[in-house]
Amino acid sequence: MGQNVTQKLLQEHLIHGELTAGEEIAIQIDQTLTQDATGTMVMLELEAMDLDQIKTEVSVQYVDHNLIQDDHKNPDDHLFLRSAAKRFGLHYSQPGNGVSHPVHMQRIAKPGKTLLGSDSHTCANGCMGMIAIGAGGIDVAMAMAGEPFYMKMPEVMGIELIGELPPRVSAKDVILELLRRHDVKGGVGKILEYHGPGLNKLTAMDRHVIANMGAELGATTSVFPADDEIKHFLHSQHRGEEWSEWVADIGASYDIEETIDLSTLEPLIAKPSSPGNVVPVTEVEGEPIYQSYIGSSANPGYRDFAVAAEIVRERQVAAGVSLDINPSSRQILQDLTREGKLGDLIAAGGRIHQAGCNGCIGMGQAPATGRNSLRTTPRNFPGRSGTKEDSVFLCSPETAAVSALAGAITDPRTVQEREHVTLPTAPTVEDQALEPPLPYAEAQDVKLEKGPNIGNIPTLKELPDEFEIPILLKVGDNISTDEILAGGARVLPYRSNLEKISEFTYEIVDPGYVERAKASKDSGGHIIVGGYNYGQGSSREHAALAPKYLGLQVVIVKDYARIHLQNLINFGVLPLFFSNPDDYEQLQPGDMLQFTNIRNQLSASNKIEVSLESSGNTLLLEHNLSARQLDLILAGGIINWVKSRMETTEGGA
Amino acid sequence: MGQNVTQKLLQEHLIHGELTAGEEIAIQIDQTLTQDATGTMVMLELEAMDLDQIKTEVSVQYVDHNLIQDDHKNPDDHLFLRSAAKRFGLHYSQPGNGVSHPVHMQRIAKPGKTLLGSDSHTCANGCMGMIAIGAGGIDVAMAMAGEPFYMKMPEVMGIELIGELPPRVSAKDVILELLRRHDVKGGVGKILEYHGPGLNKLTAMDRHVIANMGAELGATTSVFPADDEIKHFLHSQHRGEEWSEWVADIGASYDIEETIDLSTLEPLIAKPSSPGNVVPVTEVEGEPIYQSYIGSSANPGYRDFAVAAEIVRERQVAAGVSLDINPSSRQILQDLTREGKLGDLIAAGGRIHQAGCNGCIGMGQAPATGRNSLRTTPRNFPGRSGTKEDSVFLCSPETAAVSALAGAITDPRTVQEREHVTLPTAPTVEDQALEPPLPYAEAQDVKLEKGPNIGNIPTLKELPDEFEIPILLKVGDNISTDEILAGGARVLPYRSNLEKISEFTYEIVDPGYVERAKASKDSGGHIIVGGYNYGQGSSREHAALAPKYLGLQVVIVKDYARIHLQNLINFGVLPLFFSNPDDYEQLQPGDMLQFTNIRNQLSASNKIEVSLESSGNTLLLEHNLSARQLDLILAGGIINWVKSRMETTEGGA
Repeated sequence: MGQNVTQKLLQEHLIHGELTAGEEIAIQIDQTLTQDATGTMVMLELEAMDLDQIKTEVSVQYVDHNLIQDDHKNPDDHLFLRSAAKRFGLHYSQPGNGVSHPVHMQRIAKPGKTLLGSDSHTCANGCMGMIAIGAGGIDVAMAMAGEPFYMKMPEVMGIELIGELPPRVSAKDVILELLRRHDVKGGVGKILEYHGPGLNKLTAMDRHVIANMGAELGATTSVFPADDEIKHFLHSQHRGEEWSEWVADIGASYDIEETIDLSTLEPLIAKPSSPGNVVPVTEVEGEPIYQSYIGSSANPGYRDFAVAAEIVRERQVAAGVSLDINPSSRQILQDLTREGKLGDLIAAGGRIHQAGCNGCIGMGQAPATGRNSLRTTPRNFPGRSGTKEDSVFLCSPETAAVSALAGAITDPRTVQEREHVTLPTAPTVEDQALEPPLPYAEAQDVKLEKGPNIGNIPTLKELPDEFEIPILLKVGDNISTDEILAGGARVLPYRSNLEKISEFTYEIVDPGYVERAKASKDSGGHIIVGGYNYGQGSSREHAALAPKYLGLQVVIVKDYARIHLQNLINFGVLPLFFSNPDDYEQLQPGDMLQFTNIRNQLSASNKIEVSLESSGNTLLLEHNLSARQLDLILAGGIINWVKSRMETTEGGA
Repeated sequence: MGQNVTQKLLQEHLIHGELTAGEEIAIQIDQTLTQDATGTMVMLELEAMDLDQIKTEVSVQYVDHNLIQDDHKNPDDHLFLRSAAKRFGLHYSQPGNGVSHPVHMQRIAKPGKTLLGSDSHTCANGCMGMIAIGAGGIDVAMAMAGEPFYMKMPEVMGIELIGELPPRVSAKDVILELLRRHDVKGGVGKILEYHGPGLNKLTAMDRHVIANMGAELGATTSVFPADDEIKHFLHSQHRGEEWSEWVADIGASYDIEETIDLSTLEPLIAKPSSPGNVVPVTEVEGEPIYQSYIGSSANPGYRDFAVAAEIVRERQVAAGVSLDINPSSRQILQDLTREGKLGDLIAAGGRIHQAGCNGCIGMGQAPATGRNSLRTTPRNFPGRSGTKEDSVFLCSPETAAVSALAGAITDPRTVQEREHVTLPTAPTVEDQALEPPLPYAEAQDVKLEKGPNIGNIPTLKELPDEFEIPILLKVGDNISTDEILAGGARVLPYRSNLEKISEFTYEIVDPGYVERAKASKDSGGHIIVGGYNYGQGSSREHAALAPKYLGLQVVIVKDYARIHLQNLINFGVLPLFFSNPDDYEQLQPGDMLQFTNIRNQLSASNKIEVSLESSGNTLLLEHNLSARQLDLILAGGIINWVKSRMETTEGGA
């Protein structure tokens, strides 16, 4: 039986496990990408693990998120990231060079490779015949240190594309159709692999559009074949020699099968406030708009801007409509400028912004209260635009441009094509703002440039064998990571400063916690007790790292939310369960618990006994750590663990 | 004896007084400009005075400052300003249309006219043979209501320009030379009038550069003749018929005379952190730079960007240097795009931002901590860039561009001209984003669009004749408007919301003041007692309006800072002095003061008596209100005063 592209790519990189849906597998990572919002912590982690040089084939640090420089913090972060890229052997993509995903596709992506990125739209590069997966920062740090990436083998959903898109219907409508069919959880636990004759008319960048928003379906990633179109694309990027063919075998099968007849699609739009809230544009036609927004990694191609330019050329946007143009990369911006498209967009009323993520991540361009914003971006979660009570629709560039002219949501098929957009025959190719790694010898001498807001990750200690520490906080069920450590503009600017950000820990729940926790550090730390679903919500790693920094040694709860559990393990906090959930009642803040022979206990069984000092009672607790996770805990977290592995490897070499 | 241009222009608009330096004069205002940061309060003032329609020839509301839309507040302000412009008969310049000063020059400015603007660089349009003065928001509101502008007649400083600028030395170096000679207070109380044969080689936009930074010398304004160059400029803007000649008579004289031989100038640079800190570029050559920034109202012309493009074309900025390009107007951006200059700037590494003030006012583009930033902007006050510990140098586009290539401050004369920059023969002319006023009949029906953060200015009451109110706060000497009402990112977003912003009043000095003040409102208000130099510092009007809103009725101090005194008067707070400063000692918070027959007392003499309830003592106080100022106080502030004047006029018409 023939293999599909996903199977071929995973097989090629498989280190542990079998390619059976649901089984844990480990794959070798060839490339990584980090962006600036997640990258500063990743670089601090590399520093903390004493990494000498990255072990991937290529890793790139992009700066595309925090481009608004309101004060010193963002530019200081950029300088830090640049110095860390030089030190550890990464490429560095300067602010203004563009959004990671299209730049990576243009300059770095390579068929047959794996890419792990600390950005949820990393999957976009699946358009290049790659396995490209978004992950947490520490996972990406581990990949740079040469560790494989662990995941449960997803089901492969084969999406056969047939037919050809009608005029004014484009790639964005294809992925919106999938979201219409399956909604935002329809891709969970799946890899979406596209195949079929309909691919022939989809350019590499069209495929990027579709692969990118696989994230909105919750898919692990999206995969396209590396076919002649990709060969052509790489050739246009002067990288023709990096192409290799990755196509499904004849007779390849998929766990799930699905077909989209492109010729039957019409312009679609996701209404507020979910990417899955998709209807035909005709259903909301006439709604007045405040903003029309072209750009982002969900419509990053030259074509996406050029088709908007074709529509608005020698016309004017409706009075009062803000037409925001967010170029996705410097290369594309140069092509648009040279071909006159940028001029057409400006003349029609466009506001041109620097190349980057910008409003897609709420970094500027927020709409006015309650006004409709049409965006070619991938997400319209409530408030993501920056405006709390926003009203954001997601659509194609065609729909956004035609609606900008009308001042209201309008079916783009009502405006006929004056000329068909073609790609530049010789597109700009330049790596001016994509700095290559330094030679190894020079890299050794680079010092990390840390502005006043950039801290260190402290060395975490191994789990001691005996300790007696107090419960400092007891919380109830469903504590979210937002309650543990809030996000938002007040807290996030300190993402690179653990000492500072930890001051916000449990601020809302118990403002005295931070002081008590700090006081516990010298005498062995402390315990937090909680109920069910502890650590639900956002995956942010700081919610584990900040309390650890403040001396958190053990958490005892009824059960954990999955990602926070892994984050606690990664940072060396021992996560225990009550054997009997009713024991929750007998623990109180201030109680001292005595842990004896704990390293052996953990290794010997999943049950451990600790004694409650006040009563002398023994408390029965459990853990469900895998052997690898236990290693992390005993080592004092993943950074220590990988550090000692690297020492062993290097010592042995 | 012949007249200079200043005298001719003022004579033409004189309503009261004589053109003798130091005398109070009142002049008729033909045009106004407001920008968004100051404009929202101005529009609320127009609303509060029930203005039906502006009485100026033309008034323009620009949106150029708060272009970063992080949340709903800025875009809501834009919509409010647009609706107010429509309601009251102003032009509205959309966000992205550019900086007020160059746009005004291109599309609105007219030789022989007066312009009052709520922006300190309004003086830039003095380049057009106009009297163009920056003023407080309420002054501009009054001008729109048809009131004249009052000021002390400045001395006229005649600056004779002779010779011709050498290569790589440009208009920016001329104004830097004046700052080098006279520093930042050298123009106080003066109008700088330029004349002489050196003008022949300075284009209209070159003159804009020089006129603009008259503000940095503290000058009332700068004046250039409306000569053939201005005729030519207006012709290029398709407004040739709006030209009229305004040149000095032969034999015209000036109060002060000065000469600059342009041929002797060299590239100059203002070191951190004052525009007056000027030295030759050669003196700081070699200092490494982080940023090179082209744009702002201080170098807004096509030429300023094109000369930078000529320098960097087919070259690359040094690695790690951020070359930020801030187009000043949509027209110029279109010309730069069409002529290939924008492409050259991007290809060399430029980050292109939307047309507007941007980093010049700390709205993005802040430099990294302690790194040198070279800017063509007008100001480098400490922290203005957004970075507290900044290091900003001011220079010409030539110096900024050449230094960007080198990565260090570099004399631009080291890079030879490859071709001479010429202006486009047919520059873009369009008013697409400059919306004209509505016809009067339609304007009546426009409702002001107020987002949730936009309040009202409450109706202020006339000063009662009898009242007995408590002292709620007693402060010492040198209280600044920052102590009365802080600026900064925490407070300023509420600039359009008096109720909300008033919550910050005297926050640092006495956190209980706001609650006590609110409680006083229903029983006639309250008094603040202070020492010398009360209200020093920033001119912000909110520092008077916010406490007034909270019930402040009377201030009694030893003496006042000039601008805050006028602001108190404008908003109907009675500003009194101690006849005997030692009486300061006998007043305490909580004391009740009884004011009897106060309206007559104020009109009859500058001395008034009030009685101190606790002791029964009589307190001798004074005022120094002019007849006009007294009218304002009796009316309950300038808004009431102008409102009743408008009613009288309209009733009488």
